[in-house]
Amino acid sequence: MNDLKVISRDLSEKGSVVMMGFPGSGLVGSIALQYMVDQLEFNHIGNITSRFFPPMSMMAKGVINAAVRIYEKDKFTAVVADIPIHPSICYEVANGILDWLDDFDVKEIVTIAGIITNESEKRVFGVASDEEAVHKIRDHTIILPMGSISGIASSLLTECKLRRIPCIGLLGETVNNPDPRAAVSTIEVLNQLYSLNLDIEPLNEQAEEIEATMQRLAEEVQSSEVPQQKKENLPMYW
Amino acid sequence: MNDLKVISRDLSEKGSVVMMGFPGSGLVGSIALQYMVDQLEFNHIGNITSRFFPPMSMMAKGVINAAVRIYEKDKFTAVVADIPIHPSICYEVANGILDWLDDFDVKEIVTIAGIITNESEKRVFGVASDEEAVHKIRDHTIILPMGSISGIASSLLTECKLRRIPCIGLLGETVNNPDPRAAVSTIEVLNQLYSLNLDIEPLNEQAEEIEATMQRLAEEVQSSEVPQQKKENLPMYW
Amino acid sequence: MNDLKVISRDLSEKGSVVMMGFPGSGLVGSIALQYMVDQLEFNHIGNITSRFFPPMSMMAKGVINAAVRIYEKDKFTAVVADIPIHPSICYEVANGILDWLDDFDVKEIVTIAGIITNESEKRVFGVASDEEAVHKIRDHTIILPMGSISGIASSLLTECKLRRIPCIGLLGETVNNPDPRAAVSTIEVLNQLYSLNLDIEPLNEQAEEIEATMQRLAEEVQSSEVPQQKKENLPMYW
Amino acid sequence: MNDLKVISRDLSEKGSVVMMGFPGSGLVGSIALQYMVDQLEFNHIGNITSRFFPPMSMMAKGVINAAVRIYEKDKFTAVVADIPIHPSICYEVANGILDWLDDFDVKEIVTIAGIITNESEKRVFGVASDEEAVHKIRDHTIILPMGSISGIASSLLTECKLRRIPCIGLLGETVNNPDPRAAVSTIEVLNQLYSLNLDIEPLNEQAEEIEATMQRLAEEVQSSEVPQQKKENLPMYW
Amino acid sequence: MNDLKVISRDLSEKGSVVMMGFPGSGLVGSIALQYMVDQLEFNHIGNITSRFFPPMSMMAKGVINAAVRIYEKDKFTAVVADIPIHPSICYEVANGILDWLDDFDVKEIVTIAGIITNESEKRVFGVASDEEAVHKIRDHTIILPMGSISGIASSLLTECKLRRIPCIGLLGETVNNPDPRAAVSTIEVLNQLYSLNLDIEPLNEQAEEIEATMQRLAEEVQSSEVPQQKKENLPMYW
Repeated sequence: MNDLKVISRDLSEKGSVVMMGFPGSGLVGSIALQYMVDQLEFNHIGNITSRFFPPMSMMAKGVINAAVRIYEKDKFTAVVADIPIHPSICYEVANGILDWLDDFDVKEIVTIAGIITNESEKRVFGVASDEEAVHKIRDHTIILPMGSISGIASSLLTECKLRRIPCIGLLGETVNNPDPRAAVSTIEVLNQLYSLNLDIEPLNEQAEEIEATMQRLAEEVQSSEVPQQKKENLPMYW
Repeated sequence: MNDLKVISRDLSEKGSVVMMGFPGSGLVGSIALQYMVDQLEFNHIGNITSRFFPPMSMMAKGVINAAVRIYEKDKFTAVVADIPIHPSICYEVANGILDWLDDFDVKEIVTIAGIITNESEKRVFGVASDEEAVHKIRDHTIILPMGSISGIASSLLTECKLRRIPCIGLLGETVNNPDPRAAVSTIEVLNQLYSLNLDIEPLNEQAEEIEATMQRLAEEVQSSEVPQQKKENLPMYW
Repeated sequence: MNDLKVISRDLSEKGSVVMMGFPGSGLVGSIALQYMVDQLEFNHIGNITSRFFPPMSMMAKGVINAAVRIYEKDKFTAVVADIPIHPSICYEVANGILDWLDDFDVKEIVTIAGIITNESEKRVFGVASDEEAVHKIRDHTIILPMGSISGIASSLLTECKLRRIPCIGLLGETVNNPDPRAAVSTIEVLNQLYSLNLDIEPLNEQAEEIEATMQRLAEEVQSSEVPQQKKENLPMYW
Repeated sequence: MNDLKVISRDLSEKGSVVMMGFPGSGLVGSIALQYMVDQLEFNHIGNITSRFFPPMSMMAKGVINAAVRIYEKDKFTAVVADIPIHPSICYEVANGILDWLDDFDVKEIVTIAGIITNESEKRVFGVASDEEAVHKIRDHTIILPMGSISGIASSLLTECKLRRIPCIGLLGETVNNPDPRAAVSTIEVLNQLYSLNLDIEPLNEQAEEIEATMQRLAEEVQSSEVPQQKKENLPMYW
Repeated sequence: MNDLKVISRDLSEKGSVVMMGFPGSGLVGSIALQYMVDQLEFNHIGNITSRFFPPMSMMAKGVINAAVRIYEKDKFTAVVADIPIHPSICYEVANGILDWLDDFDVKEIVTIAGIITNESEKRVFGVASDEEAVHKIRDHTIILPMGSISGIASSLLTECKLRRIPCIGLLGETVNNPDPRAAVSTIEVLNQLYSLNLDIEPLNEQAEEIEATMQRLAEEVQSSEVPQQKKENLPMYW
């Protein structure tokens, strides 16, 4: 039984840098990468589905999106997720994606997540799967000296390490609400690392508006989404 | 192990439009499609069962019905369910049905569900798996600009998108009680989209009565249904 | 992995009527069929076990009984259970039994259960898998016009319908205590349907005594049964 | 996947009487059989392990014991367990052991357990898989006229019945604390049934001491055993 | 499906002594063995991952570590874990590691854990899989006369016993906080048993500081770690 189903055309080049953004604290990874693929006009080349994912999808202008999507532009690949990955399936999701990438000799993987601190700064902390990769991000992030990391970011870093694929984790300092400003910070690091020339001004300027919109949407969704049917409350018709 | 068992004769034509109504908010999908298959005298061509379904079935005039049924009339197929699909099996149910439909080159799929808002209108909101399908329903529904959708409707829309089958979601504005008036609204959209000429007057006129009946039935069922046996309360005989 | 293990000699004739009594409300099914097999001296021809059953068995005069037993006399087969079937395994149990019966071209299946109402009568309600079977019981039961049925009775009726085996459900009106009088009512219907000539007087006369005995037994068992070992309370010896 | 792993040399003779003692009420089965194998100097010929067992073992003089052990002396085999068998795995454990015994044409099986009553006597109740076996114990136990039995004893009796292996259940009347006196009673029945000549005086004399020791040990263990690690409380080092 | 994935180069010699340190009470095993491999400059030769492990990893100077690591130096192998092993997977983890070791004819296995007592001493208690192994540690530990042991230490001791691999359990007397002093005690026993000449002074001197650091880190991690995403709290983007 296939746990994770990647339905995508092949990456067009070998040696791609693959960026992954799963929602977590502050939705930092999802916001940053969705902004990147939109602004830089990445191609939407595939989707990922799984029997382990919650039955949930986002829509834009009436068009449903797969909950996890694959985009590509030149040497860059992006995996953007709308659904958080439950701890019990992080192993399967990380390995499923890495298995699929196996054919494309990826150069390195970057996973973007949020990290909650007690401070109001928007710093970016860095971890990596090996010393060489740490070296690469040393001047652009605050290297985490020690501590623990959990969730899908941890699984990606660990499984990459075991497969000897360099993997970088960028952790944007955030709070527990949707946080476009933390996303901006991680994008700035991506700009430095990969010369993306991604203009962060639009995101920066709209941050307040985005936060308001997301808050409003959260409330709307609350009342509009199809509620989880209760198993014990079976219906009948006439 | 077969998760979903479709026991049905084949669809008689290729290129069918398949409508699916699962109970959810307001039972909108079930009410609308059961009314349609009854009024337009669809043929009952098959049933769906699954070890994942709760052991529960509805009866009419003493005859038990399979909990999920397949009907057909000309180029239209309807899948009508009496049992809500638990979130944990939406993936299996959606894919099981789509796997079965794989042989019949269906033209498009329409899933009908309820959507709870804070207002008393009976509007119909629309989503779809791709832009072309959104275009088709643009004049007949209120396209949902953004937000999330969950449950079996989400799984059907997502898995159709991945299989490149056009899929439309019609979400009837409803409350959490059985809601024939919301079903009427979705039927009106079906009439517009597919020239069904389905007379909604009988349903409209009986709405009040239906609501009362369903309320009464709900109470009757409450007292008459075989209660879930408690595992710890084992019986004995003499 | 075999979910249900039927260990039995083959039915001696094709075209058997198979009656099934699982405990449920009022233990109606178990009481009625155990009484029938005892009074009419059916042969005990087999047993059913399963890793899904609770580890529990009844004894009579020191001899343990398998929790689900198969009896036969001429053209009649009876499946009698002491253990209620948990909703999560109804599908497996119903299909396991029907798979085994597949070789014997059974004529029809009768499942006997209890149905709780708010009234003190001991009527018998009827449902069936198809209209012909409903016709057969129309004069002997109160046909249930609409509503829902759940549990193993629902699974048997549904799976029989899908396999095109006529299946009748006799639901004895009962309360939630062991109810020999409701069992009597269902036996009277069996007598009418199959000319069993089963004398219900002994059961009727002993009803009060049986109720008292079962009450007392229930209390005795309460104190005598091997309690569920608690996993966290591990023993030690010297 | 092998649910139960029996690692043992073969029984040296066919036609063995196999006694099984699992801890349950009063730890009667474990105490009785461990005492028997120690006093009569049975040979420790094998062990049973399973992924279903809790990760727990007893030690004696610093040497760890497998949680379920197999002993043999002449025509007698004993299976002694330190861990209670959770209801959800009784079926697997009973069938796993019986599958292993399949090669050795065992003559009969005796399962020893505790049974809690409201009285202070130390009687032994008897059940069996068939009438012949009941006949054998009729003069030595109080045959249980009716009622239910649950747990691993029930699974062994049921599965033996289905495999046509005679099986006897000796249920020592006990309370819910470790109960060497109830164990003594069951040993007296074993002595009568199998002429074991097992001297119960040492066990009888030490009963008070044993109870005290076990109480003290229970308290010691409480404070010394490696606590169940909490998943959410992950450690870190410097 | 492979439950445990050992990704490692082969042990360089047959007949190795394999030491295992999993975190448990006081993190004794992890602290002791991580200190040993650091001080004696073991080679990091492999890692262990599993779909059963929580998605969690530790980092040092920005470099992520696999949660369970394999080190080697001459005739000594060390397995050091940062994550506690949940009781439900102890069987799989113990057998997975022992299966991997099967090719290397290991001489003996030492598992180091903590044991909580009510006293403030830092004694080391000993258990083993057989009498010969007990004899070996008799002069260096306090042999546990009786009682129970649970968790991964129990699984390792049991499964080693069944595979006839000598296995020693060193249980450092500890409290429930990270306890470098208890780790020191177990290292002293390792020094005696294997002439490691491991200088315990640095660990001893830094004990207070380590405790403080770990306390502080624990608090930091508390606020910095990626929180477990809540399944019901699905995100959305604009």
